[in-house]
Amino acid sequence: MGVKAFVNGKVYVSFKPLRVESGLVVFNERVLYVGSTERAVEIARALGGEVVDLAGRVVVPGFVDSHLHIDSLGLSLVTLDLRGVKSISELKERLREYASRSRFRWILGHGWDHELFEEKRWPTRWDLDEVASDRPVLLTRVCLHAGVVNTRGLRESGVLEAGVSGVQRDERGEPTGVLFEEALKYVRERVKAELSVGEYAEIMRRAQEHLLASGVTTVGVAGCGLKALRALISLWSRGELKVRVRVYLYPRDGEVDVVDLLSKVGLRRGFGDEHLKIMGVKLFTDGSLGARTAWLSEPYSDDPSTSGQPLVEPEELRRMVKRVHDSGLQVAVHAIGDRALDAVIEAFESVKPERLRHRVEHASLVRDDQLEELKRLKPAISVQPRFVISDWWAKSRVGEKRARWLYRYKSLIEAGLIVGLSTDAPVEPVNPWETVYAAITRGRYEGVAHYVDTAHESLNILEALHAYTVGSAMLLWDEGSIGTLEPGKLADFVILDRDPLSASDQEVRSIGVLETYVGGERVYP
Amino acid sequence: MGVKAFVNGKVYVSFKPLRVESGLVVFNERVLYVGSTERAVEIARALGGEVVDLAGRVVVPGFVDSHLHIDSLGLSLVTLDLRGVKSISELKERLREYASRSRFRWILGHGWDHELFEEKRWPTRWDLDEVASDRPVLLTRVCLHAGVVNTRGLRESGVLEAGVSGVQRDERGEPTGVLFEEALKYVRERVKAELSVGEYAEIMRRAQEHLLASGVTTVGVAGCGLKALRALISLWSRGELKVRVRVYLYPRDGEVDVVDLLSKVGLRRGFGDEHLKIMGVKLFTDGSLGARTAWLSEPYSDDPSTSGQPLVEPEELRRMVKRVHDSGLQVAVHAIGDRALDAVIEAFESVKPERLRHRVEHASLVRDDQLEELKRLKPAISVQPRFVISDWWAKSRVGEKRARWLYRYKSLIEAGLIVGLSTDAPVEPVNPWETVYAAITRGRYEGVAHYVDTAHESLNILEALHAYTVGSAMLLWDEGSIGTLEPGKLADFVILDRDPLSASDQEVRSIGVLETYVGGERVYP
Repeated sequence: MGVKAFVNGKVYVSFKPLRVESGLVVFNERVLYVGSTERAVEIARALGGEVVDLAGRVVVPGFVDSHLHIDSLGLSLVTLDLRGVKSISELKERLREYASRSRFRWILGHGWDHELFEEKRWPTRWDLDEVASDRPVLLTRVCLHAGVVNTRGLRESGVLEAGVSGVQRDERGEPTGVLFEEALKYVRERVKAELSVGEYAEIMRRAQEHLLASGVTTVGVAGCGLKALRALISLWSRGELKVRVRVYLYPRDGEVDVVDLLSKVGLRRGFGDEHLKIMGVKLFTDGSLGARTAWLSEPYSDDPSTSGQPLVEPEELRRMVKRVHDSGLQVAVHAIGDRALDAVIEAFESVKPERLRHRVEHASLVRDDQLEELKRLKPAISVQPRFVISDWWAKSRVGEKRARWLYRYKSLIEAGLIVGLSTDAPVEPVNPWETVYAAITRGRYEGVAHYVDTAHESLNILEALHAYTVGSAMLLWDEGSIGTLEPGKLADFVILDRDPLSASDQEVRSIGVLETYVGGERVYP
Repeated sequence: MGVKAFVNGKVYVSFKPLRVESGLVVFNERVLYVGSTERAVEIARALGGEVVDLAGRVVVPGFVDSHLHIDSLGLSLVTLDLRGVKSISELKERLREYASRSRFRWILGHGWDHELFEEKRWPTRWDLDEVASDRPVLLTRVCLHAGVVNTRGLRESGVLEAGVSGVQRDERGEPTGVLFEEALKYVRERVKAELSVGEYAEIMRRAQEHLLASGVTTVGVAGCGLKALRALISLWSRGELKVRVRVYLYPRDGEVDVVDLLSKVGLRRGFGDEHLKIMGVKLFTDGSLGARTAWLSEPYSDDPSTSGQPLVEPEELRRMVKRVHDSGLQVAVHAIGDRALDAVIEAFESVKPERLRHRVEHASLVRDDQLEELKRLKPAISVQPRFVISDWWAKSRVGEKRARWLYRYKSLIEAGLIVGLSTDAPVEPVNPWETVYAAITRGRYEGVAHYVDTAHESLNILEALHAYTVGSAMLLWDEGSIGTLEPGKLADFVILDRDPLSASDQEVRSIGVLETYVGGERVYP
């Protein structure tokens, strides 16, 4: 493993404190030295190393996406992209075209949002049947909490016989093909169950390519099933896993009690190496604001008949958190609504989340009194700034009074919590600059209604970049190895086409990645 | 992680080829540079590192013991040593003292011999109760065929209810606490099963101390059960595992099918980090020459009524090897007799052992035709040179004709196989210099009968040291990280009190360890 010096660059060693140097020396996957170009050249010479001229280009630490779904991301990259589709007829057109060239038995699509449809209604299985009836079809909504299947998909999945909730029916009692939460989860599991470990590994490889091309060098998978883990270990064992992966598993996988399985082997948080680590378990408290399944303490403002609901009762959540904690594993709990966050806070009371960095995922709606509780308990928080813009309708869900509780990133950071950024990809795009842009502008240029209520929650670019590197690394217990380019850390870095600190708010969004390095090795292009 | 230069030493970088330098620079657990003292000082200065003067002392790569039992080793180290005790009152005194400082619930001792007691009688549970009645006690006789428990041990073990033979009773029919054979075995199993993961971890810590003090920096555990693995991961998770451990698990653990368990998670060979890796599965083909349970192709010369026997039928062995192999795990198969080796060769035919470095453990008796087979299949071999001396009676077991097939280390190396050294500790002492001494002298100075038949199988000191470092590292798939002190490798090294290459054959045995380093960090003393 040779020595390599990168010189004459603008190297952002860290964002908080801001430290910029011109020379970086890499040895055996790690940063050996960062500082002046002169000294970097001297060290490379003394050790017989190579010198690379950065010619003034900008280097930043690799991005750490603390919460995404690498298998779903890979799947989305090999399936039909329905984001931004403006009508059901456009959706049908795209489905017809895609079905004619897809090699998969199940035809999969993702990203539609009925809020955007000019027909102002949900798509149905009969819509889908019109263009694709010979193979099963599943098209998931952008939030992944709802989806629609065609008639064949409805039958083949066996979802009607499964006795699960979340099957939408019309006024005649007929299933429309639209599935929520439990029912959708059931069908997605069935589809995933049909894929082999080899196909899964191929899907992960596609996700990896996309991540590295976007400048993301480490990801938290929150969460996945055992087949995804097996596929990751299989890639790892062939030396093909370049992006660093930290895995949170779902607590059940078919018949298997995953916590019990991990405990039998004795696997604890962080077991694995710098490329792949098993971190813990992903739990769910509630659903999403989009589907009005997020659990609120008061009814939805645009549908007072519901406050959402818990996916598990608080008592059960507490039991599960305790069990994972006692197994020496890290907990990552999904909580979007404020009532869901109450349940997580309650469950965390007994397990000292600060010491083990148990995570809250999303924390989209946080009351003032909860900020105080969080300040005391100090769990780690993974947030998805791109939601601020994508969920442009969020204020209508929660109303005037609660709008200022939405996506309180600045408040969470000021409360002294570990806050990491992420995309929840494929829910939001992997591109970190979209995330940074959203974190610093919060829908200002898109006329997002809650911008005015929450402008004070905007991060400045240094805060955003710090949270996207060191913050996310801390969520993954990885700040000793990644997040900055200080000596001793892994040489994960990205060469950019411009300087983010000189770019305007709006230019930030279009910053491009020229090269990506993981452990000092160029992995993109 | 700072830079540190060790200078003015006699640093054995590798033994094959022999390379000696005077300076070594360590950075972030790895060797950054090895070469001249002048250049080492220059590099340390450029990087702001520390300089340590070795003052001419000898440095060698850390020893890699490719086959031992870390839990049994640790247990043997925490057990009260009762060898040479001259009376029951002395035994009680020692037990009282030991009980006051032992943190284990069961108090264990070993080595008493009632033939030496001035009281001229067996010890009883009432003797033990006088000094230790609040916790269960088990003290085994030097032969391991008898032992004595206190009253609490008798009750808690449930041995009276187990319906096993070997419970000694007095004239009133009262159990005396003395147990033989079956009853003793029953209690020993119960004690092991009762040890908590925490107690196991404590036992491992003791084993680790002993290993590091002996200059052993990496071990292959071949094999252990799940509780041992859980204890190792527990130590690892607290950052307390200093010695590098590579684990081979037994295929069953109580009710648990271990191969199935590992496959469910997807764990493959080498999963883990540089401190702890799960490698594969340990299988048994036969027993030992000592107990005449090693499986020979012709009857024992000193007992023509038996040829030993297989522990599993060849067909079943083949099936097990294939299953482990197909799970992406490494196989380590115990085979001592030549007929057992036939079975392993047969089982290995279908799995290409060379590519996956499937291991043969011991290979104590190898026919000429088997050498040819091995040359073709190229499995990796772990041998225990200390057996050559300990098994001084081996020639009587196998007779004149087969004596030259014993412990053919030189032949195995010349056949182009990966050969690693080990101790099978606690079967043989951990001290690597005992092993090296045995490998180079083979019982010559002890008058071992098979010395004359196998003198040509002696290794020279460079061959022995190479096999004990690089050879063993290769068995563990670790030659990229350990085994030599070349740049990029982990800085695992030992400072010795003299130069093994200047020592006479007999002096080698008494070489002492001054300091041991793992990953550049001093771990002993």
